[in-house]
Amino acid sequence: MTASEVATSAAFLRQVNERTVFKRVLELAPTSVTQLVKETGLSKPTVGLTLARLEQVGLVRKVGLRTGAAGRAPQLFGPRPEAGWVVAIDVGLRWVGVLLADLTGTIAGQSRRRSKRSARKLVDQIGDMVDELLAGTDVAPESVLNVVVGSPGVYDKTGHRVRHASNLPGWERPDLVPTLRERLGEHIAFENDVDLAALGEQAYGLGRGVENFVYLHIGSGLGIGAVLGGRLHRGAHGTAGEVAFLPVVTPASGPAALRRGLLETAAAADGLVAAAHRHGLTTATRAEDVLAAAKAEEPAAVRAMADELDHLTTALAAVMTLLDPELVVLGGGVGRHFGDYLVPLRQRLAALLPLPIPAFAVSALGDDATLLGGLASGLRNARERALQRAEPV
Amino acid sequence: MTASEVATSAAFLRQVNERTVFKRVLELAPTSVTQLVKETGLSKPTVGLTLARLEQVGLVRKVGLRTGAAGRAPQLFGPRPEAGWVVAIDVGLRWVGVLLADLTGTIAGQSRRRSKRSARKLVDQIGDMVDELLAGTDVAPESVLNVVVGSPGVYDKTGHRVRHASNLPGWERPDLVPTLRERLGEHIAFENDVDLAALGEQAYGLGRGVENFVYLHIGSGLGIGAVLGGRLHRGAHGTAGEVAFLPVVTPASGPAALRRGLLETAAAADGLVAAAHRHGLTTATRAEDVLAAAKAEEPAAVRAMADELDHLTTALAAVMTLLDPELVVLGGGVGRHFGDYLVPLRQRLAALLPLPIPAFAVSALGDDATLLGGLASGLRNARERALQRAEPV
Repeated sequence: MTASEVATSAAFLRQVNERTVFKRVLELAPTSVTQLVKETGLSKPTVGLTLARLEQVGLVRKVGLRTGAAGRAPQLFGPRPEAGWVVAIDVGLRWVGVLLADLTGTIAGQSRRRSKRSARKLVDQIGDMVDELLAGTDVAPESVLNVVVGSPGVYDKTGHRVRHASNLPGWERPDLVPTLRERLGEHIAFENDVDLAALGEQAYGLGRGVENFVYLHIGSGLGIGAVLGGRLHRGAHGTAGEVAFLPVVTPASGPAALRRGLLETAAAADGLVAAAHRHGLTTATRAEDVLAAAKAEEPAAVRAMADELDHLTTALAAVMTLLDPELVVLGGGVGRHFGDYLVPLRQRLAALLPLPIPAFAVSALGDDATLLGGLASGLRNARERALQRAEPV
Repeated sequence: MTASEVATSAAFLRQVNERTVFKRVLELAPTSVTQLVKETGLSKPTVGLTLARLEQVGLVRKVGLRTGAAGRAPQLFGPRPEAGWVVAIDVGLRWVGVLLADLTGTIAGQSRRRSKRSARKLVDQIGDMVDELLAGTDVAPESVLNVVVGSPGVYDKTGHRVRHASNLPGWERPDLVPTLRERLGEHIAFENDVDLAALGEQAYGLGRGVENFVYLHIGSGLGIGAVLGGRLHRGAHGTAGEVAFLPVVTPASGPAALRRGLLETAAAADGLVAAAHRHGLTTATRAEDVLAAAKAEEPAAVRAMADELDHLTTALAAVMTLLDPELVVLGGGVGRHFGDYLVPLRQRLAALLPLPIPAFAVSALGDDATLLGGLASGLRNARERALQRAEPV
């Protein structure tokens, strides 16, 4: 190597070391130089110098001494939580959720409201909710390093707008993204809500450490988020996982069902209610009613649930043959009540396919899967931005 | 950095440099120090030293001078092709193919035979075909750095055997892998033939430079190989792409069809012939007969092809909603004749799904897609092995 290459590689290695040490400080905090040397494989002087630099730029701080052991108590280090903040937003037809967390991922506050009806009012509502959350926690808007917005639909990077969001009227308007950007800042990312829920499961839920898994959302809509080889698979146009459109044999066909998606029309919350009506349970108005009646062995509800399982078997057969996941996590307003149906689902799939059947489980994240996925995604963006801002120019 | 870290990183950078320079020499050959400096961003002395080392271990050689330009003609370098060899094997029910190439990917020889009936005889046949190919090209068996075997089914790494290979009787026997390993050496990899065909398209076919695409094989079997985010997706158990088992509505149901797979039973070559028989074209014995009769607008054959397109639309709807590929490449004995059906297929999908429709194309690799995928995969393994063998111990 020439002298200039050694210099370049030294600068490059310093950046790599800063990322490595900061990542380990985040994971291990409170941690000591000795522990960081062991975990990173770097030398004691390098760890010391890197920590000093991270402290100087405000990403790391001293957090006291380790006591109890013999000898001199070592200095402990941790991330400086207020070095930056992340906002995650979950926008749906019925609810808007907003979450604020510091750079360590500690949640500072969270709120949830009934969604306003029009897209214009929804944007104002989101802006107000974020403002209130920041004001209530004394966080300055400029210290928010990243905002992640999860919603139905798919973000079209070329057209700077959301598409395929038929579940959220007005959300596809071309001025929506610019308006939100103006209101919430330029460091904003738009994601599909079910994709974010999959990331939430990967970071905080049942998907931790699972290389290949699928999150199946069944609520007022129906969709899949797939983590393949450890990464969220979005596809060529961002429409991977839009299984709402899978063709299934259902009485509810016709142009409207085709536009919305045959599987979603048949198997999302209102499809389950419609099936119960067809079988004679005309008093059911919400999916929860059908689920409760089926639990009480009401025959019409039991038949509606059998239809539901048939539709899901079709979808999951496609998931298994194409993706071969290790695990399927069910979530959403309907999906979260499927605990009693996991065994029958597996049985149907085993009877249909001579292939390894994945494990099935109900999400433990409840309403928060999408917000937590937004947090995970936002933390990645925000930490990278914090490190970049700390680079000498 | 301490002195020992500089030393470690220097050794590490030398290995990185060797991989970088060797890769560029393979791509650009014949190439000069000046061009490699430009392409790699490394300094002239580093490129010179790295080339000298690669030449010393026999991976690179001088290949003459560049003439025609003004000034002193620069020395040109290229890979030493005979630094190592790769064997790719494609085993099917009807044909066995064998291919031999040098480390630059230049094919030295290739042969194809009707498959022997029993698995035991097939193993002998493969061994004999490889021996003949090596003898006929004067390549010593010990200079073969990697052998890749593509076949129906899925390699089970834990059990060291092939599973789900119902299209190749006897191929799932537990002694098959050890026997082939004994015959062809320990540096042997087992892959699904359709997965290899997808890798063949990625390296030498229509999938070059395409991040997300799917290879759909329709022949005596039916399956998919998916390249997602630039990487072949195998799934948790290696069964990703086994769409043979997708449930479709077909007259050919029953336990045998379920075991083999409903979609494969309905839409692979024999399923197309059966459909023609049902519609009254009882003289058809091979899929080619049905395709030819449909081209001549024979009504029963046209109806059989309409059934075929219905089945494929079901499968491709699952592919689109779950994977969202940019491109679908059709191949295999039946699939390669689908040139006239790509427009009707797209139309059916567009009528069914309000999602971005991928491009459709027929593979140009013909019978060789699997062998070329084996070559691409084998070259990767063999080049890595050659570089590792060259490391000082």
